[in-house]
Amino acid sequence: MRFRINNLALAEEGKKKIDWAEVHMPVLTNLKKRFQEKLPLKDIRVAGCLHVTKETGVLIRTIKALGANIAWCGCNPLSTQDDVAASIADEGISIFASRGVSKEQYYNDIRSTMEIKPNITIDDGADLTVEMHNIEGRQNEEVYGGTEETTTGVIRLRAMERVGKLKYPIIAVNDAETKHDFDNIYGTGQSALDGIIRATNVLIAGKNVVVAGYGHVGKGVARRALGLGANVIVTEVDPIAGLKAKLDGYRVMPMIDASHAGDIFITTTGCRDVVTQEHILKMKNGALLANAGHFNVEISINSLELNSVSNKKINENNHEYLLKNGNKIYLIGEGRLVNLAAAEGHPSEVMDMSFANQLLSVLRLVDSRGKLSPGVYDIDKSQDQEIAKAKLESMGIHIDVLSPQQKNYLEGFNEGT
Amino acid sequence: MRFRINNLALAEEGKKKIDWAEVHMPVLTNLKKRFQEKLPLKDIRVAGCLHVTKETGVLIRTIKALGANIAWCGCNPLSTQDDVAASIADEGISIFASRGVSKEQYYNDIRSTMEIKPNITIDDGADLTVEMHNIEGRQNEEVYGGTEETTTGVIRLRAMERVGKLKYPIIAVNDAETKHDFDNIYGTGQSALDGIIRATNVLIAGKNVVVAGYGHVGKGVARRALGLGANVIVTEVDPIAGLKAKLDGYRVMPMIDASHAGDIFITTTGCRDVVTQEHILKMKNGALLANAGHFNVEISINSLELNSVSNKKINENNHEYLLKNGNKIYLIGEGRLVNLAAAEGHPSEVMDMSFANQLLSVLRLVDSRGKLSPGVYDIDKSQDQEIAKAKLESMGIHIDVLSPQQKNYLEGFNEGT
Amino acid sequence: MRFRINNLALAEEGKKKIDWAEVHMPVLTNLKKRFQEKLPLKDIRVAGCLHVTKETGVLIRTIKALGANIAWCGCNPLSTQDDVAASIADEGISIFASRGVSKEQYYNDIRSTMEIKPNITIDDGADLTVEMHNIEGRQNEEVYGGTEETTTGVIRLRAMERVGKLKYPIIAVNDAETKHDFDNIYGTGQSALDGIIRATNVLIAGKNVVVAGYGHVGKGVARRALGLGANVIVTEVDPIAGLKAKLDGYRVMPMIDASHAGDIFITTTGCRDVVTQEHILKMKNGALLANAGHFNVEISINSLELNSVSNKKINENNHEYLLKNGNKIYLIGEGRLVNLAAAEGHPSEVMDMSFANQLLSVLRLVDSRGKLSPGVYDIDKSQDQEIAKAKLESMGIHIDVLSPQQKNYLEGFNEGT
Amino acid sequence: MRFRINNLALAEEGKKKIDWAEVHMPVLTNLKKRFQEKLPLKDIRVAGCLHVTKETGVLIRTIKALGANIAWCGCNPLSTQDDVAASIADEGISIFASRGVSKEQYYNDIRSTMEIKPNITIDDGADLTVEMHNIEGRQNEEVYGGTEETTTGVIRLRAMERVGKLKYPIIAVNDAETKHDFDNIYGTGQSALDGIIRATNVLIAGKNVVVAGYGHVGKGVARRALGLGANVIVTEVDPIAGLKAKLDGYRVMPMIDASHAGDIFITTTGCRDVVTQEHILKMKNGALLANAGHFNVEISINSLELNSVSNKKINENNHEYLLKNGNKIYLIGEGRLVNLAAAEGHPSEVMDMSFANQLLSVLRLVDSRGKLSPGVYDIDKSQDQEIAKAKLESMGIHIDVLSPQQKNYLEGFNEGT
Repeated sequence: MRFRINNLALAEEGKKKIDWAEVHMPVLTNLKKRFQEKLPLKDIRVAGCLHVTKETGVLIRTIKALGANIAWCGCNPLSTQDDVAASIADEGISIFASRGVSKEQYYNDIRSTMEIKPNITIDDGADLTVEMHNIEGRQNEEVYGGTEETTTGVIRLRAMERVGKLKYPIIAVNDAETKHDFDNIYGTGQSALDGIIRATNVLIAGKNVVVAGYGHVGKGVARRALGLGANVIVTEVDPIAGLKAKLDGYRVMPMIDASHAGDIFITTTGCRDVVTQEHILKMKNGALLANAGHFNVEISINSLELNSVSNKKINENNHEYLLKNGNKIYLIGEGRLVNLAAAEGHPSEVMDMSFANQLLSVLRLVDSRGKLSPGVYDIDKSQDQEIAKAKLESMGIHIDVLSPQQKNYLEGFNEGT
Repeated sequence: MRFRINNLALAEEGKKKIDWAEVHMPVLTNLKKRFQEKLPLKDIRVAGCLHVTKETGVLIRTIKALGANIAWCGCNPLSTQDDVAASIADEGISIFASRGVSKEQYYNDIRSTMEIKPNITIDDGADLTVEMHNIEGRQNEEVYGGTEETTTGVIRLRAMERVGKLKYPIIAVNDAETKHDFDNIYGTGQSALDGIIRATNVLIAGKNVVVAGYGHVGKGVARRALGLGANVIVTEVDPIAGLKAKLDGYRVMPMIDASHAGDIFITTTGCRDVVTQEHILKMKNGALLANAGHFNVEISINSLELNSVSNKKINENNHEYLLKNGNKIYLIGEGRLVNLAAAEGHPSEVMDMSFANQLLSVLRLVDSRGKLSPGVYDIDKSQDQEIAKAKLESMGIHIDVLSPQQKNYLEGFNEGT
Repeated sequence: MRFRINNLALAEEGKKKIDWAEVHMPVLTNLKKRFQEKLPLKDIRVAGCLHVTKETGVLIRTIKALGANIAWCGCNPLSTQDDVAASIADEGISIFASRGVSKEQYYNDIRSTMEIKPNITIDDGADLTVEMHNIEGRQNEEVYGGTEETTTGVIRLRAMERVGKLKYPIIAVNDAETKHDFDNIYGTGQSALDGIIRATNVLIAGKNVVVAGYGHVGKGVARRALGLGANVIVTEVDPIAGLKAKLDGYRVMPMIDASHAGDIFITTTGCRDVVTQEHILKMKNGALLANAGHFNVEISINSLELNSVSNKKINENNHEYLLKNGNKIYLIGEGRLVNLAAAEGHPSEVMDMSFANQLLSVLRLVDSRGKLSPGVYDIDKSQDQEIAKAKLESMGIHIDVLSPQQKNYLEGFNEGT
Repeated sequence: MRFRINNLALAEEGKKKIDWAEVHMPVLTNLKKRFQEKLPLKDIRVAGCLHVTKETGVLIRTIKALGANIAWCGCNPLSTQDDVAASIADEGISIFASRGVSKEQYYNDIRSTMEIKPNITIDDGADLTVEMHNIEGRQNEEVYGGTEETTTGVIRLRAMERVGKLKYPIIAVNDAETKHDFDNIYGTGQSALDGIIRATNVLIAGKNVVVAGYGHVGKGVARRALGLGANVIVTEVDPIAGLKAKLDGYRVMPMIDASHAGDIFITTTGCRDVVTQEHILKMKNGALLANAGHFNVEISINSLELNSVSNKKINENNHEYLLKNGNKIYLIGEGRLVNLAAAEGHPSEVMDMSFANQLLSVLRLVDSRGKLSPGVYDIDKSQDQEIAKAKLESMGIHIDVLSPQQKNYLEGFNEGT
């Protein structure tokens, strides 16, 4: 067991956080209870590349309790919670992660993680999986398969699959309904705003909040901004999504027009160069920029720097750029995932479902080793429904059950008007 | 040309309504302008079975303008607007529809419509299509195909397809994103509440509104009830949908528990026997029952009648049942689609997109006659996007366009952190 | 007993409506039960000038049950429900009201009502009270006092009081918290949108709705428009109200700027000339205009007419003006209170509290005859709280009660940090 | 100049915070620019007792810039931001404040502040003012008067006034509409939820949030909880407020019933013993308790302790109580104002208006020294409107202006129907 973390002395604080998260993740905790006696992951080598947060700590604990050997790294240079990393190391697990790493260090950490020679990879954004493919010998027969946590990663992996470059099976955990329809909407929705508020303490009420993209994340962010009293403007490239935003009561316009109006800009597109020089130069003095998409390419930091005469740090997650035109523009969390950089990421309650899906997917990969050809695989609807049911029960909620007559009716076609 | 309508003298009033709808349906109107010179439907025989509303009037006018021969009937015994039917007849189109028909008359009207020997069927709920299959010779080679407007109909037709009973191709207009993600959510959402208000004038604010089902219609109805100040309770049979309702802030519980609490019950499930005797007997005095699902089987009218000592008509769309237990329960619109029975159905603005999809689907069926084997077909994503784009433009809304670099980025996988 | 109504044959339909309203007005109904044995209004002559709706029917029945002699007229040329008026006449009460009267007929009806030589006047908008003062001898010692239902009326009467022109005591029912904080916000909020939807069936979702004025009515209308999916713009003249609208998430701008953007305009100011020629000429083709303020002076109908080449009736409550600039502008309900002209006014549930306040105020005027000098009087806080408590109980809602220790704490000042 | 603070080394960090707040307080900053040349507070001694936050830092800087001598202390044992206190000391101002003081130290700090022998007191909660009255000689003729920032303080001071104990004039800044209608609703609304999220990172969506009290603070908290996806339950003792909550769509019930249902409890009443033993014993395992009222008496900490077998600190603002019944209950921020204990208090944007009112009130007290008899004074409506106007302008918002004809109309009474 090896590790590269920031400060082992933070382990106790990290442990408290993971403990707190654990009680808010009843679905995952119940799965652990159900499986841990049989040790279904005994001696399985798992490499994980996923935001080092308290919830990930719970996932790691769970996988370990089922018998796995684990090595872990972060999947974003700014998302590691150093106290959590310390606690994981303190529990005897190899981990290579600290908050605020350089790109070089970031990839070194991924490669350190890969030295476990994983049977299973758990990924978020596909950086580990791509690296496994880039480094010869890493995508060999010892690799049963991998999982992918996020939209961006699934898009990258499907692109690899399309051109025949994907060498082992991947389960698209992201595409589980209990994952992407929940963590993106409810998790990012709350935590992206939370990150902006922690970094700036601005009043959201009365602000013009520009949300770039109206996919799952954008919808969640827009809804929470509205719920906090903002006037929301949505930008889109897809007319169907744009039309939904319009009928949901938001203003919809091109980013160049939104640039004048916005007080706060939040990118959620998964694309690059969503906020660029032409937009920045039209913004109001005092505008705040934040990104809730996976990579820090949505806001052009390069444009900010090229157009600035100086910049300074207001606090750890708030940087002021003094533009040549005299305006001050503020970049939150260095343009990286704002809910992880400036807040604590998704609340435990939504990660509970994501990580229950992760765990069941890892178990499925182990069960079906050698049987799945390379490709991106979906999660079974039944797994999704099982997780939703367990979640509802953990909240004390019961629902109706179809009677045989009702099932029959739904499957038939004879009964009309 | 033949017709069976209620009162031809209403034609002028109906014409005014259709004219009013037409100006609120710019996408369909623009398609008409684009195609009408070439008469692509010249001599094509079209049988339609779809709510006779002012918006359907615009669709009929459009199809006629493109050259078709048309026969039409209603798809719900209580949804025909008699003035609109009169105006359609007055424009020289065969129509067999009046508000408040018996089941027998309803099917007679469908059969009258079928006498045109259609090349194309346009259906909503699949009653016409099923009847076409029931009556020998009606699903022969002269039938190029059909379209289906609603979820319930698509479910029935897919059930027929599964067991090999479907004899001609059907385009599932309902499954277009610009259709089911819009008319169900925004259209039924507003108009179901509108129907209840017109029938009762109750204040929605402060009422406990029980929404059965949290599919597209249920979400729309729940959102509008909330928007009007109600406290919303959702019932579901699917745990994923139930969990979404819970995280959207609603209460979620079995119908039997909701029965005590509700002031207004709205069924949106597409299933039968959602509100039955056991629920009705637990309801508060004064409870209102309405259905926004396709068929009038969701609320058990039979249970109401069996448990009543008397009933009376408060107004055309509001019937009081005096239960044996002394409570009065009110049934809106006879348990039929409340937005059509007690209001005017979907606003023109959403039918615009539905019917643009209908028109393009009819054109596609004509273009591909003889080439499509029996089965249920989806709408192309590109058609969906074209309609959304046209709709946004009609509202004066512009959106962003991906640059080549952005497209490239979205299609690649090499660029990671 | 005399009457001037439209059609006595409508009495049965009106009776059904009043019956329906009665069961939705439990507070007023309970007061009736409490007082009717003692006939506290025996031989008291009451003149009422208040929208002739089904709820007013319940108030009239109640006052009659307590012993009064009654004469009644409408307080708006377009708000009388003819079937309700018929039923009131049919119950043997003098009434002078029909829908769609000329200004001359309107004032004739007020004067017919005054012929009862009232001891008590019940007014809404102060037209009756002003007329009582204009016609010599009508404000003499036989008049114990009056009540006033609405903001506009109270403003007029306080203006009269300021200049010494008010000759008898008026209880400002409007200023009861259980009145103006409820019917304006919840009642007009819902019913103004209801009126617009009934008149036009437009989809509110995605529309730009301009609300002029952010007082009680404006807040209610804005909230419901938002709740139905609109993007709301508020115009104001008071900076505090404007700032609240802004922080509530709405856009705030002068009417001249809103004129370009709006799809639907709703005036709620109580002032005149809020929408005038300069605004109308800048509006989009198809814009809808409606008024939810007391008098039809908020939208300049004169400007519409002067700038039109023609106009036509789409339906009873929707008139199209074809402007010289080629645009069509639609005026709903002739610019009169849209919730009364095009819908059914406030739902019974809110009128319940208003009219409970009316009844208790009438009883107070009778009790204190000869003791109150001319002036505008407030409602006691205790009456307000009693009505709110009765209303909550009728909804099955219980609340907490302060303990003696808590009361003590709230009255003291010694306990600090 | 003297001070008692935690750590002067934090001054630089505190300065950055105050600088950041200053740019978000344009109304106060503009007043500073307008007045500072004339030094209207030259040699005036000002004692302040108000949460030591970055916004208060801006107020202190402003008062100093106008010439005053200042001594300052906190008004809550847990609300002082130590870095801000350090920066104030570093700017040469007497300050006695640190986060987490004992009650004894708290009052010592107040007395240290009083040693400046103030001409003006600025208070928040009335602890300083009461202490000025308790200690002989402190309410003498050198005291021109004071201001009071919060509802609780005004209630205490009006109680003193009623019994003739108030010895100098107080301007009730709290009662300015631009103060209490904004900071309570928009400020506490956002920041109370912010405090709970920072302390626990729980997902608000899907939680049952019980809000005790539906005054300004309660409304704000309820609205934001709803906006974040919670299901909100309101408890009240006033039927009018309870009825409003009900019609706003919330559930309303006594606290004893809410105790079973709630996941998060937030008290906002200004009263004591709102959450006591009988409630705590009925709560779910994992329930969170937070207070957003002025004093820490709303949640009975005593009851928590008496019913616990142990307690532990999850983090600085989250304490776990393990009850004898086996449940764990969590107390956020020690039951003190959660938005100040666990977050940063009101955002600068709302304090801008509060403190503009404070500044103008201090200037008024100086202008009218010797002319105001003891008593609680209101703020002029014109001052309120001036501040709202300045705020709107700082946001780039313009509003309409009444024409002379419109003013005339509003003041008259002759124009009726």
